Amino acid sequence: MSLTDERALLNLLGHYTRAHDHRDPDAMAALFTPDATIEIMDAVGGAACLLGRLEGRAAIGEAVRQMMAPHEARAWSQNVISAPIIAIDGDHATIDAQFMVFSIVGDEVPDNGWPAGTFGAQGRIIPIEAGQYRPTMRRTAEGWAISAMRIEHRLPMAFG
Amino acid sequence: MSLTDERALLNLLGHYTRAHDHRDPDAMAALFTPDATIEIMDAVGGAACLLGRLEGRAAIGEAVRQMMAPHEARAWSQNVISAPIIAIDGDHATIDAQFMVFSIVGDEVPDNGWPAGTFGAQGRIIPIEAGQYRPTMRRTAEGWAISAMRIEHRLPMAFG
Amino acid sequence: MSLTDERALLNLLGHYTRAHDHRDPDAMAALFTPDATIEIMDAVGGAACLLGRLEGRAAIGEAVRQMMAPHEARAWSQNVISAPIIAIDGDHATIDAQFMVFSIVGDEVPDNGWPAGTFGAQGRIIPIEAGQYRPTMRRTAEGWAISAMRIEHRLPMAFG
Repeated sequence: MSLTDERALLNLLGHYTRAHDHRDPDAMAALFTPDATIEIMDAVGGAACLLGRLEGRAAIGEAVRQMMAPHEARAWSQNVISAPIIAIDGDHATIDAQFMVFSIVGDEVPDNGWPAGTFGAQGRIIPIEAGQYRPTMRRTAEGWAISAMRIEHRLPMAFG
Repeated sequence: MSLTDERALLNLLGHYTRAHDHRDPDAMAALFTPDATIEIMDAVGGAACLLGRLEGRAAIGEAVRQMMAPHEARAWSQNVISAPIIAIDGDHATIDAQFMVFSIVGDEVPDNGWPAGTFGAQGRIIPIEAGQYRPTMRRTAEGWAISAMRIEHRLPMAFG
Repeated sequence: MSLTDERALLNLLGHYTRAHDHRDPDAMAALFTPDATIEIMDAVGGAACLLGRLEGRAAIGEAVRQMMAPHEARAWSQNVISAPIIAIDGDHATIDAQFMVFSIVGDEVPDNGWPAGTFGAQGRIIPIEAGQYRPTMRRTAEGWAISAMRIEHRLPMAFG
């Protein structure tokens, strides 16, 4: 294996965004330790307060299954991760990464195809969430896993 | 040389985005092995089907020359690469990276300069493409090169 | 310490974006060598010309204090760093990274709370700046520090 620990940690964060964007409960749960927690914070304007808390791998998978709506037709989401700051101390590590989530919705191809002269990507890409992902990771027998994830939202969140 | 293989691979992907954003056919071709391929996929909503295929370094350079319009005045594009997942196996490697392409168009400075009180960047930045870049790389005598690039678009593509 | 030089350099760039987004003059100044410079360039359409120059750590902190307006209520900025190309030569290094700055402004929670059925993040996220950060770094007794930062803007800048 030729990857450094720091790259293994970033790969893990990459898999987290894939599970999120694919709305894949099992892939998401598998990234966490059995006793892991997720804390969702409101960090509008800087200060942070707790909005919700998940405890345990099963609850994390269930939250993806129940709280994240499946993508509509021709729709997708994309996490943009940026400027991670990594700290590693033996078998423990943290990342402080900026995230943004974009909503991607493709136009429907017209029955007669695109009009003449239409060129390039057809649809809308809109940033809908921004903040920090702050995972704490632990080295396990199967490699690095997330033991605690803190999600700090920079926009106020409404819950229906 | 103090860079790890994983960083050399990410630098290579960085040069790919520069060649794309600069519309530079020769810089682009130089990043690929002579027998390299590019596959452009429609991955709207998740499943992928082939839209087009380029074969060989010369065809890759030619595609940049002929298919990518030069930037208009005060215009630029920027690739945002995010959350790469890297795998290395000896002299072969793959990256699965999310990309977004933004169109950047600057406002024209008025003949009499900006009106009093105008402050900051003047123009528009709009996300126009999103998806995954999935290069396969090979270690060559000159360093890592891309042997196959798979571009998966999350928005439907029209071709004029 | 288990981080590679390349990761220490990227962490440093991560701290630069945090100091920028937090409007923190002291945190910003601390990332630079005492004799460091910042050059702000207009690179609209590709070619670059000098807009402004800061010299010395004190001037850099002062510029953050005086030129960057504090965030309004419920507002934040986020630097998106992408596709860095890193070169290291002993105790000197350079990064060429793409950046975008997004303005994030949260909606105000209505007096009676969000209307029924409101779900998700409430507010606007808008890209306002784009270009390249091109820091030169030097290894010091306290670790890597920025000795020169070149900021290349792809949109024309107005200065009030």
